[in-house]
Amino acid sequence: MNFLYPKLVPASFTWTRPENGAPVTKVHEWIEPLSSESAPEKSKAADFVIVGVPLSRSSISASGASEFPDAFRRAWKSFTTYNLDEDIDLAERIALDAGDVPMHVTDIRRCHENIVTAAAVLFDHFPNSKICAIGGDHSITAMMVKGLQQARAQERIGIIQFDTHFDLRDLSDNGPSNGTPMRNLIESGVVKGSDMYNIGLHGFFNTKDLKQYAEEQGVHYITLGKARKKGIKETVEDCLGHLATRVDTIYLTVDMDVLDIAYAPGVPASTPGGMTTAELLEGVMAAAKHPKVGAMDIVCLDPLKDTLVQPTVKLGTHVFLTFATGVMLR
Amino acid sequence: MNFLYPKLVPASFTWTRPENGAPVTKVHEWIEPLSSESAPEKSKAADFVIVGVPLSRSSISASGASEFPDAFRRAWKSFTTYNLDEDIDLAERIALDAGDVPMHVTDIRRCHENIVTAAAVLFDHFPNSKICAIGGDHSITAMMVKGLQQARAQERIGIIQFDTHFDLRDLSDNGPSNGTPMRNLIESGVVKGSDMYNIGLHGFFNTKDLKQYAEEQGVHYITLGKARKKGIKETVEDCLGHLATRVDTIYLTVDMDVLDIAYAPGVPASTPGGMTTAELLEGVMAAAKHPKVGAMDIVCLDPLKDTLVQPTVKLGTHVFLTFATGVMLR
Amino acid sequence: MNFLYPKLVPASFTWTRPENGAPVTKVHEWIEPLSSESAPEKSKAADFVIVGVPLSRSSISASGASEFPDAFRRAWKSFTTYNLDEDIDLAERIALDAGDVPMHVTDIRRCHENIVTAAAVLFDHFPNSKICAIGGDHSITAMMVKGLQQARAQERIGIIQFDTHFDLRDLSDNGPSNGTPMRNLIESGVVKGSDMYNIGLHGFFNTKDLKQYAEEQGVHYITLGKARKKGIKETVEDCLGHLATRVDTIYLTVDMDVLDIAYAPGVPASTPGGMTTAELLEGVMAAAKHPKVGAMDIVCLDPLKDTLVQPTVKLGTHVFLTFATGVMLR
Amino acid sequence: MNFLYPKLVPASFTWTRPENGAPVTKVHEWIEPLSSESAPEKSKAADFVIVGVPLSRSSISASGASEFPDAFRRAWKSFTTYNLDEDIDLAERIALDAGDVPMHVTDIRRCHENIVTAAAVLFDHFPNSKICAIGGDHSITAMMVKGLQQARAQERIGIIQFDTHFDLRDLSDNGPSNGTPMRNLIESGVVKGSDMYNIGLHGFFNTKDLKQYAEEQGVHYITLGKARKKGIKETVEDCLGHLATRVDTIYLTVDMDVLDIAYAPGVPASTPGGMTTAELLEGVMAAAKHPKVGAMDIVCLDPLKDTLVQPTVKLGTHVFLTFATGVMLR
Amino acid sequence: MNFLYPKLVPASFTWTRPENGAPVTKVHEWIEPLSSESAPEKSKAADFVIVGVPLSRSSISASGASEFPDAFRRAWKSFTTYNLDEDIDLAERIALDAGDVPMHVTDIRRCHENIVTAAAVLFDHFPNSKICAIGGDHSITAMMVKGLQQARAQERIGIIQFDTHFDLRDLSDNGPSNGTPMRNLIESGVVKGSDMYNIGLHGFFNTKDLKQYAEEQGVHYITLGKARKKGIKETVEDCLGHLATRVDTIYLTVDMDVLDIAYAPGVPASTPGGMTTAELLEGVMAAAKHPKVGAMDIVCLDPLKDTLVQPTVKLGTHVFLTFATGVMLR
Amino acid sequence: MNFLYPKLVPASFTWTRPENGAPVTKVHEWIEPLSSESAPEKSKAADFVIVGVPLSRSSISASGASEFPDAFRRAWKSFTTYNLDEDIDLAERIALDAGDVPMHVTDIRRCHENIVTAAAVLFDHFPNSKICAIGGDHSITAMMVKGLQQARAQERIGIIQFDTHFDLRDLSDNGPSNGTPMRNLIESGVVKGSDMYNIGLHGFFNTKDLKQYAEEQGVHYITLGKARKKGIKETVEDCLGHLATRVDTIYLTVDMDVLDIAYAPGVPASTPGGMTTAELLEGVMAAAKHPKVGAMDIVCLDPLKDTLVQPTVKLGTHVFLTFATGVMLR
Repeated sequence: MNFLYPKLVPASFTWTRPENGAPVTKVHEWIEPLSSESAPEKSKAADFVIVGVPLSRSSISASGASEFPDAFRRAWKSFTTYNLDEDIDLAERIALDAGDVPMHVTDIRRCHENIVTAAAVLFDHFPNSKICAIGGDHSITAMMVKGLQQARAQERIGIIQFDTHFDLRDLSDNGPSNGTPMRNLIESGVVKGSDMYNIGLHGFFNTKDLKQYAEEQGVHYITLGKARKKGIKETVEDCLGHLATRVDTIYLTVDMDVLDIAYAPGVPASTPGGMTTAELLEGVMAAAKHPKVGAMDIVCLDPLKDTLVQPTVKLGTHVFLTFATGVMLR
Repeated sequence: MNFLYPKLVPASFTWTRPENGAPVTKVHEWIEPLSSESAPEKSKAADFVIVGVPLSRSSISASGASEFPDAFRRAWKSFTTYNLDEDIDLAERIALDAGDVPMHVTDIRRCHENIVTAAAVLFDHFPNSKICAIGGDHSITAMMVKGLQQARAQERIGIIQFDTHFDLRDLSDNGPSNGTPMRNLIESGVVKGSDMYNIGLHGFFNTKDLKQYAEEQGVHYITLGKARKKGIKETVEDCLGHLATRVDTIYLTVDMDVLDIAYAPGVPASTPGGMTTAELLEGVMAAAKHPKVGAMDIVCLDPLKDTLVQPTVKLGTHVFLTFATGVMLR
Repeated sequence: MNFLYPKLVPASFTWTRPENGAPVTKVHEWIEPLSSESAPEKSKAADFVIVGVPLSRSSISASGASEFPDAFRRAWKSFTTYNLDEDIDLAERIALDAGDVPMHVTDIRRCHENIVTAAAVLFDHFPNSKICAIGGDHSITAMMVKGLQQARAQERIGIIQFDTHFDLRDLSDNGPSNGTPMRNLIESGVVKGSDMYNIGLHGFFNTKDLKQYAEEQGVHYITLGKARKKGIKETVEDCLGHLATRVDTIYLTVDMDVLDIAYAPGVPASTPGGMTTAELLEGVMAAAKHPKVGAMDIVCLDPLKDTLVQPTVKLGTHVFLTFATGVMLR
Repeated sequence: MNFLYPKLVPASFTWTRPENGAPVTKVHEWIEPLSSESAPEKSKAADFVIVGVPLSRSSISASGASEFPDAFRRAWKSFTTYNLDEDIDLAERIALDAGDVPMHVTDIRRCHENIVTAAAVLFDHFPNSKICAIGGDHSITAMMVKGLQQARAQERIGIIQFDTHFDLRDLSDNGPSNGTPMRNLIESGVVKGSDMYNIGLHGFFNTKDLKQYAEEQGVHYITLGKARKKGIKETVEDCLGHLATRVDTIYLTVDMDVLDIAYAPGVPASTPGGMTTAELLEGVMAAAKHPKVGAMDIVCLDPLKDTLVQPTVKLGTHVFLTFATGVMLR
Repeated sequence: MNFLYPKLVPASFTWTRPENGAPVTKVHEWIEPLSSESAPEKSKAADFVIVGVPLSRSSISASGASEFPDAFRRAWKSFTTYNLDEDIDLAERIALDAGDVPMHVTDIRRCHENIVTAAAVLFDHFPNSKICAIGGDHSITAMMVKGLQQARAQERIGIIQFDTHFDLRDLSDNGPSNGTPMRNLIESGVVKGSDMYNIGLHGFFNTKDLKQYAEEQGVHYITLGKARKKGIKETVEDCLGHLATRVDTIYLTVDMDVLDIAYAPGVPASTPGGMTTAELLEGVMAAAKHPKVGAMDIVCLDPLKDTLVQPTVKLGTHVFLTFATGVMLR
Repeated sequence: MNFLYPKLVPASFTWTRPENGAPVTKVHEWIEPLSSESAPEKSKAADFVIVGVPLSRSSISASGASEFPDAFRRAWKSFTTYNLDEDIDLAERIALDAGDVPMHVTDIRRCHENIVTAAAVLFDHFPNSKICAIGGDHSITAMMVKGLQQARAQERIGIIQFDTHFDLRDLSDNGPSNGTPMRNLIESGVVKGSDMYNIGLHGFFNTKDLKQYAEEQGVHYITLGKARKKGIKETVEDCLGHLATRVDTIYLTVDMDVLDIAYAPGVPASTPGGMTTAELLEGVMAAAKHPKVGAMDIVCLDPLKDTLVQPTVKLGTHVFLTFATGVMLR
């Protein structure tokens, strides 16, 4: 926070320039808060619209993922807008922060309705923007996509999912929890199973029943082992290639539990044997470059579990920045 | 876990006695699981019936208090049943563990109904037992007391509450969260405001509105400062003395956030300036000795936040053991 | 962060009220940022002006106390403005946040000059306000008091200090570090040693030389043991009583290392055998009530060392709120 | 813990299904406790028999590896029995938990004798099972293998070892510590040095003397660098291929300190430059598939050092599950 | 570590004085290593002889208390030798560090013999010194006292013990563990039960059997509750008064688990409801002042469990410094 | 610390050999303290001279990197001198520890001058040694290289840098902080931009301006992505090949923030997407083998942030040992 009283300082006194005085654009200097006033005029121009979705009381296990939108914003000051690998400066594009979707403390159904409504509003008013939802747990994905469908009823929607789990659990058991978003979308007719591609499944974190359901519904899944053999980038490009022939808009959902737990101490559901950081970033970059990818989310990252220097919060933030870079490279 | 295959070991081989071989009764050896089969016969004899209430998705802030019932049970092995200060052995009494109330992942209303039902069942079938609910967040208290009322409709119920907060928030804002249990009971006519005594309020953790509501409803509150001046024990005895003239059964609710945060790193809502461990244990002991105290709960303890050696989980467990000792001293 | 796009939501849709929807004033809703524009008009009315002083590279041991101003502001949302013990609402008074004093990365002398200048500006333009400096390490105290003297050259200044150390080290050794502020003020003639009262010294954290220097300069010191015997409140009142007969303005400096390390894991220099939270808050309250206390600071709190639920950051924040309450009780 | 009192709930009340209500088999639902009664009949059928070996007072450095058997069992509920990569369900096989070998607090020799006896009993009565010992420190390996030899005196035994160390220290220095198990087996004539294959050695964690001893005894060792160059799987298969021509039974010992410390914060002796999780799991899978591998252990994992979300405990558990999968794939 | 190459720096270059350049004596500058050469001449003059006893594999629960001697020495630099409360400078007395007693990795009996021998040597050669043993777990106390008896066979020895436990477990169960030292001394005839005073017992951490044994043997015990009521200092003085009429030398043993767990995160066996730091230091000071107290130990402090700023290691160190101060105040 | 009093133990008593009694040379037994007396004679023979540079108050963000020299020395006992991969024993060479460069608390310019002077002295008197500076933050590199130039004015110096950042910030903003060392050397004419090779840059941690400055000055930079594609070893060898044709001495600087944050929790500036441990060690080994590499440093490692088992401190130590091994392999 800058000293707010400079005018009253005698003109003869020269302050030092603030720390980090060099002409660096940090991410928090790039992303603008969206105000209702500015919204109409910006609705055409914005490249990225971020919305916080601080809901994790719908998570099967106790989760503080609702704290991630705030932690994500605080992490912005650790990143510049300039990507050296690609020689691209995100600051050349417009990014807006639409704030957080309001939540109810004890009525999860209303929370979900609020997300659908907020998503529909954003997808409607920002037709040229990539909408980036910052969760929250994975239950929010079904709601974001339902909002997308409300706003663009004529479009067929496909999904690229990075995940350790199918997320195809039966909703009749425990409602729309973080174990169900994909089934929710299938059963509600919003997305066909065959328009879903799940990359990163592995190990002992799913069941045979769910696999059978996936196969019945035509859900495509590529285990981490197979994706590694083919190449993560190649796998993602391959999935997108097939999917793009059928759908109008592709929604990318990044469940951070796809990561190996050594890379993601702040994701309680992450597991031994998952993706490395490099693999996930490679996959996200590949997805972001595809012209039909119009929205994304990052879910299941609990900042309260992260270790002292916040590796997971920083990685979650890097996922968003990588996505934005990929979009600029289209 | 003991070695399960002793029979097959040659008779000529003498095992060493297990570690801790001395004739010590640890708490986990004392408390028996309640089975449906044994329930009827035990219903008369049991002194204490424990029930886990693993609900914290109703908490305003993200909470892992739903993990406390399990952590509480694991902590039993750190305690013997013998209280040296009072020369009393809890093992002389019967304690049963009724397991956990089933919960729903996304329907908090159903969770609350389940708690009411389970409480009613327990209060009905164990008329001579102290029912001890292990939360979970503070929203469960309203449900436990409603269950008590269902089971014993003819009884007038009073409450002794250790808390840093009034817990009198308006339910029309966000439903029956952990900020509302006392108002919930008042508005539903289950307990009169004037039959509630809240001990331990202090600092900047309440609002003037809530204080006014408390006063309108006749809720008694004794700030920590005043309780300290008079003596914690004396304060509790005084409250009980007044309350006992009016009610049939007294329910003791211990919100662990009444503790100073230095003593309770595992209670995210604990605050600077709260009770010391010694003060809380003194207060619980005083309450437990009163013959009309028939039930209690321990809430808002999040084991996932505790530090390495688990001081807060151990303290929460000690609160229960102190309560049981007080009951034996009646 | 609230959802920023409400206007575009269909009027037929009713959002739930935000979490914590009840009419609660949290501290972050009370304290206003000071803008240059509003400064002149507010200069009469403001009761409290907060200024962050994020300097700790002048600390003898490696310190992250420069992070405390930010952590302090983030902690505001954990506190309401209403003090239940005293039935006082801070929101009835005006509090301004002047932001942080700009710092230089490698020139500590310039950092110190900046603090003096900023302090002089604030003490000059806000003659009726209590200036509250949020450190940083203890070297800043000398600079704040020098700024006070620049602004009000005619006033005699006295100091009440809560500290485990004398902070009277020789400046010719290593310059104006956090071990020297009191000696700095004595040697520069800003404050007389006999106008300084240090409360809380104890144990093995000082040297005989420093004690002799203190005595030569007439610095008053009351060890924690003696203060406890007399009563913390009585000790502070006694010191203030004597000091007020001689000086015009009293500056209160709270070195958080006065606390016992069990209460202050986020103060690396805190020690076994220090003050309890209750004692420090009692002392701060007593000081704040005195009409001549016109400024205060809180120093040496390193949020990067704090444990997960941030007990020390919360306690540091509580110290400020307690000070403000005391001022209102005058 | 399930609610134990369902019978008494009115039939008209419908509980929600428990969380995780879907037909998922978690590992803790699969593995059955072995009782003396059931032992004879199960002795033919069991595929896996687990035995806890909670001994780490024989460790050179202070270790809490004695806590791993308990932590291992608690981690079961984080895993399903279904391995998606291989489309195999462990639940189709029988796994028994024989509990923990009893230990003595101050007589390490007796602890070791107890392990030998327990191992002999298990290897004798479960001739068709894979015996899986959960340490404990690495000293237990010598005892498990001695027990194996007692039970099956006619068999020649070979060893595959994943380790950062030779574990060939001289027993005359400090007895059978965790630095000595391989030498112990060589010197006692139980296993020939030339029937031992150690994979994963690297860096500055061994001595020239030990290497010379290894070479004198014909112990095969493949440094991590060489194994990586050839492929972990290929290396393991190669070792097994040679070894299987000479021995009847192969014992697999997994010292978790073979892992890079970034993957294993709960293994104090893990080192920079060790195996990744993916490499270890690949190696264990390759070993498990070999028909002569009849027993395994997991040692030197100290759950008390693990970070909050327990990556190392989960990884240790995954090692067992991967082993079991490999066995099913034979 | 100071720069070791000053001579070669050009004379024209003036180094700054090292940080902390002021004439402060830190504890690590006071305590001298004892060398064999200097031993004879120092044997008369030394006031304090410290010996590390890094044994904790004899602990019932897994313990890293063997790391405390090293951590204790590293903490010295956080303390000066000057006690401000008493205006006493420890540096006026001679303190020697005799290093650590050698230990065996797997033969706990030999470790114990080594301690007895080392203690006998020290008590023999330093008749005028206070011998201060830095554990290690509580089993070492029996060995230190046996060594004392060997060296001074004609003396009758008494014990003052600060502890949460009786430490009177039966040695026939599990040998001389940390649960047995007092019984060990009674049964071996070294100290009579009636010459033992245990202060600080409380809560649910002992058994009725042990209490009965204590009473049969005449062991005096004062619960923490009773000691608080009478005053810690008064309690200790009272015990010493009685004991001193009967014995020649008093051994003070400080089991750090006597502390409340909030003050001692680095003592896994510490408990809710134990002593505060202030109480323990008061008790140690009172004991140290008595002329017959000739030796002491500090046990059961596990630095590996301590939190980041090491409150428990610092407190353990403060216990020693307080003891030394008390001795100087005789 | 060994027991220092062995002479007085009766000859008839046989101590056990110390733990780790085997003839292992640990790193702390290999590296000798450099004394002024021995310096002249050793100046020819020493292969490695270590100097601690405990300065991090010049770091842009709060840093405890000043604690690394001490932590580095304490970590020595976790490593032997024998490298198994290369069958090389460092103990065959001479390594000296010159202690720490003295620092000033508040005058960073003098700290920097002290480093230049100390470096010049060491480079002058140890012409045949590799000088290894243990930081501290990255600002020290400019000072070490300036000292090198003072000592060997006729030599042209080149730099190999492992880093996530350019470290080319403008010194006129905030002086010679840890963001500036490379620019500092360019602007002061000590090293040409075109004699600098920076390996490991990636992500969003630099700015376009700095890249342009780098290109104007001819600084060579190889992003991590490009280095990975070519091979880390091959990249380093390639850079050295070009550089060696132009310069006399090559200085290797290892900014530990080049590591992925999952591998380096003790480097607050480390980032998602950085090098793995294996990659860094491979790069350091390749650099060390080159005959013109005459000095190195390790910077920006903050031990106070490391996790419990100290993975980052151990890795920093391993970097030095790997460097020494590489030198022996020339």
